[in-house]
Amino acid sequence: MTYCLGMLLESGLVLMADTRTNAGVDNFSTFRKLHVLADGPDRQIYAATAGSLSVSQTVIGTLREDQLASDSGEPKPCLGEAPTMFRVAQLVGEAVEHAGASVGAALDRAHIESHVDVLVGGRVGDGPLKLFEVYSVGNFIECTQDVPFLQIGETKYGRPILDRTLRYDTPLADAVKLGCLSFDATMKSNLGVAQPIDVLVIPADRALAPISHRIERHDPYFVELQERWQQGLRKTAASLPTPRWMK
Amino acid sequence: MTYCLGMLLESGLVLMADTRTNAGVDNFSTFRKLHVLADGPDRQIYAATAGSLSVSQTVIGTLREDQLASDSGEPKPCLGEAPTMFRVAQLVGEAVEHAGASVGAALDRAHIESHVDVLVGGRVGDGPLKLFEVYSVGNFIECTQDVPFLQIGETKYGRPILDRTLRYDTPLADAVKLGCLSFDATMKSNLGVAQPIDVLVIPADRALAPISHRIERHDPYFVELQERWQQGLRKTAASLPTPRWMK
Repeated sequence: MTYCLGMLLESGLVLMADTRTNAGVDNFSTFRKLHVLADGPDRQIYAATAGSLSVSQTVIGTLREDQLASDSGEPKPCLGEAPTMFRVAQLVGEAVEHAGASVGAALDRAHIESHVDVLVGGRVGDGPLKLFEVYSVGNFIECTQDVPFLQIGETKYGRPILDRTLRYDTPLADAVKLGCLSFDATMKSNLGVAQPIDVLVIPADRALAPISHRIERHDPYFVELQERWQQGLRKTAASLPTPRWMK
Repeated sequence: MTYCLGMLLESGLVLMADTRTNAGVDNFSTFRKLHVLADGPDRQIYAATAGSLSVSQTVIGTLREDQLASDSGEPKPCLGEAPTMFRVAQLVGEAVEHAGASVGAALDRAHIESHVDVLVGGRVGDGPLKLFEVYSVGNFIECTQDVPFLQIGETKYGRPILDRTLRYDTPLADAVKLGCLSFDATMKSNLGVAQPIDVLVIPADRALAPISHRIERHDPYFVELQERWQQGLRKTAASLPTPRWMK
């Protein structure tokens, strides 16, 4: 299992991804699922993947090696030349479709799960920060202000806290904190999601440098956050009244 | 969609179920999913169902009408004669298997979802309160003290609050309150779960009467609980520190 979260806010873009992979509970490992696709002066493009590890790595490898070829055999524009993030999302969608038609189809024939979802975020040239979710067949949606986050993988346990607290105008540092609480809820209920958690933050203000951080197991901040959140939730729940019809 | 929750505590048994059914978003309705299977001086047996409404109703109807017949054509012991809750769970499992082999198989042939899950709780004679989850093929598990609750239907959104707060020694009124918070989280994230919520409480103390209550839409207690919980969560989240590496 996997949990990846993308938040697109007025203040910037945040991508977070856990690193646990497993094929059954007796075969789990640590793989990075948050990838840098382009990091130059004119474009910063990042992707997080959930689903079949072999298909995900094929997608990322294909994009990095610009191996996409059109049906006619003509070379296609690669990520390094895409003029907009919309075009980037299309190229990622094509890479997903391509991997699905090759590796995915082989897995399907063996009745092995081949599903893959990708979060793609970043910016190109003078364009704004954008965030997309690319589905298994290559179609995609774009994150908008009304619900300023997208999730892939094990999405449900960690969603209520985001629905309740995250807004488009949430400051970046607070968004990272809320993202940590969302991962905490997910990890409490699903062993398939685990630290380290990779975090990437791209401030909307171009004068501020991107931040890349890995939250390791037993990270003091994360442990403190988990404990204080647990205590606060229990205290809040205890302070609420019970129904009158139960007395 | 549906959300049903059963809690088996030192202080008693709580069953809660929403009432929304839907076949697509343009066809939703209100149906009771919390059923009384037996309510006499020697046995109180209750069930909550999730999944295909027609299969669920077939299961409940079969159990109520004691229509189960053994393969040899001999009449089987009915719920009203089962000597233990374990035997009750077996009979419910057989009814589920029977409905699956008839109605379920017909639905499968038409490629329509036929899955059904059942929570069965209560007590027989001098026996203790018990709670079981019966799966689609008729097998079942029993709730134990380590994790004193079982869920069926849309289980994930409402699980973190229970994992964090519910214990075997939680008093009944508090458990109902925590159950309401679990339903609140689920309803916030899934339109397929909605009020009214049916609640059934059977105290372990036989001197206390069972409580049956329906929480209607706009119920003042539930609305107050939702608002104060939301405020408390936001306040707690706001009080937590942000990571130092984000400053």
